[in-house]
Amino acid sequence: MKTLAVTCGDAAGIGPELVLRALAKPPSEWGARLAVHGNAALLRRVASATLLPQPEGIIEVAPGEAWPENGHVIITAQAEDAEFADVIPGQVQAVCGRHARTWICNAVRDTLAGRAQGLVTAPVNKQAMRLAGVDFPGHTELLAHLADTPDVRMMFWSERLRVVLETIHEPLAGVPSKLDRAHLLQTIRFAARAAGPRVGVLALNPHAGEGGLFGREEQDIIAPAIADACAEGLRVEGPLVPDTAFCSAPYDVYVAMYHDQGLIPFKMVAFHEGVNVTLGLPFVRTSPDHGTAFDLAWQGRALATSFFAALRLAARRGRLPVSRCGA
Amino acid sequence: MKTLAVTCGDAAGIGPELVLRALAKPPSEWGARLAVHGNAALLRRVASATLLPQPEGIIEVAPGEAWPENGHVIITAQAEDAEFADVIPGQVQAVCGRHARTWICNAVRDTLAGRAQGLVTAPVNKQAMRLAGVDFPGHTELLAHLADTPDVRMMFWSERLRVVLETIHEPLAGVPSKLDRAHLLQTIRFAARAAGPRVGVLALNPHAGEGGLFGREEQDIIAPAIADACAEGLRVEGPLVPDTAFCSAPYDVYVAMYHDQGLIPFKMVAFHEGVNVTLGLPFVRTSPDHGTAFDLAWQGRALATSFFAALRLAARRGRLPVSRCGA
Repeated sequence: MKTLAVTCGDAAGIGPELVLRALAKPPSEWGARLAVHGNAALLRRVASATLLPQPEGIIEVAPGEAWPENGHVIITAQAEDAEFADVIPGQVQAVCGRHARTWICNAVRDTLAGRAQGLVTAPVNKQAMRLAGVDFPGHTELLAHLADTPDVRMMFWSERLRVVLETIHEPLAGVPSKLDRAHLLQTIRFAARAAGPRVGVLALNPHAGEGGLFGREEQDIIAPAIADACAEGLRVEGPLVPDTAFCSAPYDVYVAMYHDQGLIPFKMVAFHEGVNVTLGLPFVRTSPDHGTAFDLAWQGRALATSFFAALRLAARRGRLPVSRCGA
Repeated sequence: MKTLAVTCGDAAGIGPELVLRALAKPPSEWGARLAVHGNAALLRRVASATLLPQPEGIIEVAPGEAWPENGHVIITAQAEDAEFADVIPGQVQAVCGRHARTWICNAVRDTLAGRAQGLVTAPVNKQAMRLAGVDFPGHTELLAHLADTPDVRMMFWSERLRVVLETIHEPLAGVPSKLDRAHLLQTIRFAARAAGPRVGVLALNPHAGEGGLFGREEQDIIAPAIADACAEGLRVEGPLVPDTAFCSAPYDVYVAMYHDQGLIPFKMVAFHEGVNVTLGLPFVRTSPDHGTAFDLAWQGRALATSFFAALRLAARRGRLPVSRCGA
């Protein structure tokens, strides 16, 4: 059976209770056993607060220690237990950022070493990470750094719709000047390999620019990149008129030029079961498409559907060969 | 019973067959009798081509002539019949642009004079209009010019979702610099009056700018305009995070910062029954939210649901008092 490395994310968010819910189900439910990077004392505290099942019967091992062959495990450093006694749910705390970072590093190391066949991460808080001295715009960028693969893309995956973003956390004013033919070609390749074969590439401007009347990025950048991809034998169409592109969806995956162009339609059809997938890493990495939800933390009310979908997708994809992810 | 002025749009598009389908139903079906600005010979020719019912029993009057009190009428200039004998469906032709313009002018004149209580327009072709010497980006701008009310907005209306656009046919690169606090305040007023009371105003940037990290337009322009609107007693919320704003929809109407931000979600929920409404004119004006569909013209296959929805909405709204539309 496969092993998935799982991180608990920010201890003050909903990550620990999502992990508790996942641990309460047997490996057969996920198609993988879970190797949870977190803290067992924290999980017990959150279980008490939320009235979720305690992680009883789950084997606890220290970081670096060997894992049993089967069954879920919690990788936990007992010496750190006390640090979680004072964590306040729903608040930005440096201690949470620091441990979230450690768990990610350890999980990446195990995954790169082949001890796990995929990585599923619970949400972190950017401010807490920054307080702890970790200055990355998000999870994705930190993972790219740790895996030494800077050329990554975000895919949002659901049964009904899959979208890969060409630009991510860019102010809208900065999007047009960021578009680049070679970068977009690589995005199209990532999309085709991860969720193809049929790729639909969106235009940037209203009416796809209407022949240059409402912008020229379609003619100057997007159409040439599509032509490049077609010349490589990929099944790519576009630039698609954005406002009708999602009405009928004959594509296996869409490439969106900016964050909200892809995520407005994605969240409309997959609000509770969307999965964030990082493309370009040398291993499978998924996460739920929501944040730490501090307002709901440790109350047992957080919906786990997106986290569960992330676990199932990671298990299904197993370990993508590096060549499928890279250029 | 109310009268709606209706234009046939581009003769070579699907406008004439949409009008034929509408004329085939009695005024009670629409809540208004239709005063069609077009050409009766053209309509007969299209009816023959499409096997739709001929406009039999519909009274034909010359432009300027008095209308009967009840029943649909076709306002038609017999002297022009011959000009439509050579019109080729699905092609850009100057003659079609010229007549489309005349019909719009006559319909606006009748509506402003109170002979009709609303205006419903079939689609025109921008290129054909330009060939005929009419150089407006679209219907909306021409109507604003004819009615001498330059401050207009586009609303997209459906039972499930209503969206007003702050910018319309703007290249994406030009959107951020076009945003203006006073203009946005006026857009919010229009939205509240036309489809309120609860107005949701979208942010421009991903994550609503995340506190300035991904753009400052939220803090500098959008939030101040919302505050202005609230100070006037309007029920306005925002700037809303764009990608989740449409997941649950507690607002009667949304204000979108750019074309596709509003129209991607709108067309996903209302592809076949969306209605385009012009706000700011001294009369009600609606149209279907699709174009001339030259590829389908004169084949009897064009779906009339959006045009029918436009007729029903215009009849329902009757004549909005000018003060409700203006500032």
